Amino acid sequence: MEKKRIVIALGGNALGKTLPEQYLAVQETSRAIADLVEEGNEVIISHGNGPQVGMINNAMAAYSKTDPSHPAITPLSVCVAMSQAYIGYDLQNALKEELLNRKIKKNVATVITQVRVDEDDPAFAHPTKPIGYFMTKEEAAEAEKNGMHIVEDAGRGYRRAVASPKPKEIIEIETVKDLLEAGEIVIASGGGGIPVIRQGNHLKGVGAVIDKDHASCLLAQQLDADLLIILTAVEKIALHFGTPQETWLDEISVEEARRYCDEGHFAPGSMLPKVQAGIAFAASAPGRTALITLLEKARDGVNGKTGTRIS
Amino acid sequence: MEKKRIVIALGGNALGKTLPEQYLAVQETSRAIADLVEEGNEVIISHGNGPQVGMINNAMAAYSKTDPSHPAITPLSVCVAMSQAYIGYDLQNALKEELLNRKIKKNVATVITQVRVDEDDPAFAHPTKPIGYFMTKEEAAEAEKNGMHIVEDAGRGYRRAVASPKPKEIIEIETVKDLLEAGEIVIASGGGGIPVIRQGNHLKGVGAVIDKDHASCLLAQQLDADLLIILTAVEKIALHFGTPQETWLDEISVEEARRYCDEGHFAPGSMLPKVQAGIAFAASAPGRTALITLLEKARDGVNGKTGTRIS
Repeated sequence: MEKKRIVIALGGNALGKTLPEQYLAVQETSRAIADLVEEGNEVIISHGNGPQVGMINNAMAAYSKTDPSHPAITPLSVCVAMSQAYIGYDLQNALKEELLNRKIKKNVATVITQVRVDEDDPAFAHPTKPIGYFMTKEEAAEAEKNGMHIVEDAGRGYRRAVASPKPKEIIEIETVKDLLEAGEIVIASGGGGIPVIRQGNHLKGVGAVIDKDHASCLLAQQLDADLLIILTAVEKIALHFGTPQETWLDEISVEEARRYCDEGHFAPGSMLPKVQAGIAFAASAPGRTALITLLEKARDGVNGKTGTRIS
Repeated sequence: MEKKRIVIALGGNALGKTLPEQYLAVQETSRAIADLVEEGNEVIISHGNGPQVGMINNAMAAYSKTDPSHPAITPLSVCVAMSQAYIGYDLQNALKEELLNRKIKKNVATVITQVRVDEDDPAFAHPTKPIGYFMTKEEAAEAEKNGMHIVEDAGRGYRRAVASPKPKEIIEIETVKDLLEAGEIVIASGGGGIPVIRQGNHLKGVGAVIDKDHASCLLAQQLDADLLIILTAVEKIALHFGTPQETWLDEISVEEARRYCDEGHFAPGSMLPKVQAGIAFAASAPGRTALITLLEKARDGVNGKTGTRIS
């Protein structure tokens, strides 16, 4: 088996919504990742943080109410940083244990990772990503005074919405490379990375969240990976999903994938960004492949037995 | 100037009690650290997290009250992990910026670090370290039912107390070494490290906090550092501190330092653990020196101009 450099993008939901759930989830995840390591591949893990960063954001807000010396709003960049440690700690431990159980001695490191976005990304003009707790009308008005963008969530109240700008640069890419060079397994760019903008030599955190599949795509490109694995809740992607014409896809070209996107086969906010990230990676250089499949099928997918491959 | 490998241990209080304070504090800290880097030294940064981990612990407790699906107690190990990212993100950014301002191109990485303690450390039988918010008598009784050890804090109410066991092993030491090898500046073992015990191949987080000076001492030993800098609120340590006999110390031997400890010159819980950590490092191998001084005197101290040196 040829050794590949693989970036694997885990979903935030796949990590569980609470600590006890996460503790169990990382064990299953680690078995799938250890399979890839065992076959000699170089593995870089990125992950989502939807439920986790929402929880941390809410916790910090709840705390601020009890301690007036603390700012009412903890920047989302700080919450994302904390979520990287919250998840990375459990994940690096579970993976290290699984590897040791298989007599594989490899270090696993979590790197606190920032991802640069453009200050003038059009996404900042249209915050669409709801984050955190539901508010009453009065709380929403107060939050707007504090500079938050508030959206109404049909029937459930008001929520803060933030922008989801495009990732432009993995700031700690050299750190990730140095660790790979040393033979380590790296957990990086968690939650799409801590969103920052560049102001001269200064990196400024911004109140945004970066799509984790797009950040993983950029990470894979900057690492010159062979394969980007995007995990989902289905083994393969389908045309006419859920209809009698349903057709599962095995191998498709970038051009085919683009056409299917244009034809509206994939749900926005769900499968569409995954397919788009896969296309962007496969199109970025010759020899690069994106694989979309289930966590437990990752090994079979890498070996060409299942999943949808875009190349 | 001869290039040294230096571990510098920052105090948690030196990082500020709130985010705005931290944001300013890391700028000052970064100037002092950049001085050491500029002179060609290899620098590893560890730091305390007293105020920060207390805040995170309280935030998670406040959150649990709003979401019954979450455990009432977030393990302290998880809170320490989060504090490493909370502090490391700001610190790595400020240091990187300061270095770029000086035209120094060096990467700065925060490594989520676990530190192993012994399950049968006698400290576990006598939890002494108060952590988190004050409780009423009723809340304290409830907390005890949840397995917490509660102590009464004279006149201020009840608080959780946790053990402060001795650090035995920096789990991610190879990651730190790999990054140093690649020329990076590393932030590691924040808050004394995430406390874990070993159970076969499994590392289990424990409800404890590790003294950051002792953890920094172990980190410096495992990295075979030349110098351990322990920062305090005074330029040098003194005998008969605050009395007419007050004598500032420049260079002392391990034996002298031990004698002064025995004679009770240093306040327990304050200067004593710092001197003890300094002694432990200096005594661990020939050629190792511990320096105790102020942050802004670190460069002069490294160059032998001030501070108290134990060697």
